[in-house]
Amino acid sequence: MTELTTVIHDASEIVVGPGTDVPLERYENAAIAVTDGHVAAIGPTEEITDEYPAENATHAIDAGGKTVIPGFVDSHTHGLFAGDRSDEFAAKLGGEQYQDILAEGGGILRTVNAVREASDEQLLSNLLPNLDTMCAHGTTTVEIKSGYGLDTETELRMLDVIQQADEEHPIDVVPTFMGAHAVPEDENAESYTDRVIDDQLPAVAEQGIAEFCDVFCEEDVFSVAQSRRVLEAGMEHGLTPKVHAEEFVRLGGAQLAAEFGATSADHLLHANGDDRAALADAGVTPVLLPGTAFSLGADYADARAFLDEGGSVAVATDFNPNCHSQSMGFAIALACVGMEMTPAEALVAGTHGGARALDRAGEVGTLREGMPADMAIIDAPTYIHLPYNFGVNIVDNVYKMGEVVE
Amino acid sequence: MTELTTVIHDASEIVVGPGTDVPLERYENAAIAVTDGHVAAIGPTEEITDEYPAENATHAIDAGGKTVIPGFVDSHTHGLFAGDRSDEFAAKLGGEQYQDILAEGGGILRTVNAVREASDEQLLSNLLPNLDTMCAHGTTTVEIKSGYGLDTETELRMLDVIQQADEEHPIDVVPTFMGAHAVPEDENAESYTDRVIDDQLPAVAEQGIAEFCDVFCEEDVFSVAQSRRVLEAGMEHGLTPKVHAEEFVRLGGAQLAAEFGATSADHLLHANGDDRAALADAGVTPVLLPGTAFSLGADYADARAFLDEGGSVAVATDFNPNCHSQSMGFAIALACVGMEMTPAEALVAGTHGGARALDRAGEVGTLREGMPADMAIIDAPTYIHLPYNFGVNIVDNVYKMGEVVE
Ligand SMILES: [Zn+2]
Ligand SMILES: [Zn+2]
Repeated sequence: MTELTTVIHDASEIVVGPGTDVPLERYENAAIAVTDGHVAAIGPTEEITDEYPAENATHAIDAGGKTVIPGFVDSHTHGLFAGDRSDEFAAKLGGEQYQDILAEGGGILRTVNAVREASDEQLLSNLLPNLDTMCAHGTTTVEIKSGYGLDTETELRMLDVIQQADEEHPIDVVPTFMGAHAVPEDENAESYTDRVIDDQLPAVAEQGIAEFCDVFCEEDVFSVAQSRRVLEAGMEHGLTPKVHAEEFVRLGGAQLAAEFGATSADHLLHANGDDRAALADAGVTPVLLPGTAFSLGADYADARAFLDEGGSVAVATDFNPNCHSQSMGFAIALACVGMEMTPAEALVAGTHGGARALDRAGEVGTLREGMPADMAIIDAPTYIHLPYNFGVNIVDNVYKMGEVVE
Repeated sequence: MTELTTVIHDASEIVVGPGTDVPLERYENAAIAVTDGHVAAIGPTEEITDEYPAENATHAIDAGGKTVIPGFVDSHTHGLFAGDRSDEFAAKLGGEQYQDILAEGGGILRTVNAVREASDEQLLSNLLPNLDTMCAHGTTTVEIKSGYGLDTETELRMLDVIQQADEEHPIDVVPTFMGAHAVPEDENAESYTDRVIDDQLPAVAEQGIAEFCDVFCEEDVFSVAQSRRVLEAGMEHGLTPKVHAEEFVRLGGAQLAAEFGATSADHLLHANGDDRAALADAGVTPVLLPGTAFSLGADYADARAFLDEGGSVAVATDFNPNCHSQSMGFAIALACVGMEMTPAEALVAGTHGGARALDRAGEVGTLREGMPADMAIIDAPTYIHLPYNFGVNIVDNVYKMGEVVE
């Protein structure tokens, strides 16, 4: 027998997801009924509560004046790390050059050292509160990359901790292997690429946790040829490709992502029209990360070009020590204010777009009948307040499979 | 007998305020003792708890791993309003021109109509939750302007509601009269200036609530001559001048503020070196409002010029329907990321700077001995995390006169 777990009724607005004729399909004065953790019905309150009376539900919520949205799908984070690099943020604002910070042992390799030194327990106890913060801001599915180990042992430990967090925390955590995130201090890119392929990838495949294989295809990091070797090897081991592409220069990562039919190409600040067309043709989801540009004082990716050419994009936080924000609501505000996306486009990019960027379209990111009831109630009469009320978390409650978690 | 109300001990860091030799005076592994609502002592935990044992305090708080900062002084808001203008935010992002939004009845006069139609009870019930949100983000003193009435009756009602909120809410609310905020639909600027001076100001003075008199000195709003008349009349009625100056063009509001020795000149996006020098010479505090520039997609004020020339600034939220953020933490993040202020400069600007901009330096905004114990505990090992963790509220608890309010 199906169990009517949750009925949320009298919401000012419920957002379903992208519509066919409208940017966003939504109901006003709406209700949603959840049976067995999945959306049973969604529509005008009267209609829904006729069929699914609130008094029959285990949890009945009067959402008067509030809005229900699909839970956010944060499709790009480096959310598992150790150490505190806030001093580098302050030093940069105080005028210190990035080169000097690196010379003083700062930057990504400092995080690598901190992660290598941290125990599994420390790593897990770093990650869980960050998942709490993400969840409190409406995220119900998040991708987390390894890539602060840069050796087989630590990369495996990171993936193991990511899996533990997925088991312990209500948020769904999607694990990505990213051994090719940076070149360790004692190596060059070419020999380290060999180690990723020959040592790390077979071990990661045997461990069986990682779903995606990502690579930082960038000048002075991994060349297109090295990135191609990593992704090819990843695919041979059953890992789906993702690419960090065209962040600081246009190197060719987007074309590589298109060539491999990667699930996503991410950053894309320097992608051009050819790159956008290639990604669209190959069905690769562009993942835009406005928080990174914001925190580095860089220009934003050209979201309008992607959208105006008929493509679709994902927006994610890129939460990491260089972009220290767990809030998808703020990423959506930046998508609007910084990248001129409409609130509807930005909300879709942070939900359905994120699901596409994680190969989970139709599984999460929309509130259609039969989908898991992953959703957030926001304390505002319309979803537009998400970017409108910038810098403030207006998420009230978060539901995973229809159960309140926050 | 003095009562030891609160001892916060073992804080990772306690920020006192601007130092004489350092940008920010602070203690590590620190404690603060509060007697009769005021700071009794602040320093290394061992030293402080020797004299003020935690077990003797009504409230003893172990702030291990956390940071104590002075409560924020938000010195510029239009936080009392009615209606919802989030649709205009979405329309602008959808490419609609501001002129069209105005033609459809949008913009400030829409808020004026909504405020005129709202009852006092409605206005108060709009304001109180916004004060809650401000307080939850660490603000302990906030200025709120009238100026959505634009007629004597409604301006008085707004000031009355602001006073009621001050009485009902733990936050201190500083009332500013701003009848000269916009020109009502049925008037021209010159005749409306007469009404502000002849009708509104005498009534406001008789009511006796407002402390400051502010004017929007801007092209197509109030000229320098009209602004001068308003401020002069305000001073005759005992109200201290403030000026909205050089926001969209350089009109002369900054020089006017200097001429009158105004407490503050606000916005200043188009102020030049002469303006900065005049403000500094006259002891006028420049109030910078990066949230407004952020939400309008405008350039930021040149904070570095003010600071590098040896001046000091305040940073405030400008919370209003066009800049819908109550968070001082986010204003501080924008001050860093958008205006290249250091985290120390930005924190001082949001605390002591705000106090200066409200004629309350030495009364609030720092945590020195004898000052009211208005403070916030943030869930981070250093104040740098305030801007570093952008878009996320890391304020844990807020204390007003040593009593927890949030
Ligand atoms: Zn990344
Ligand atoms: Zn203002």
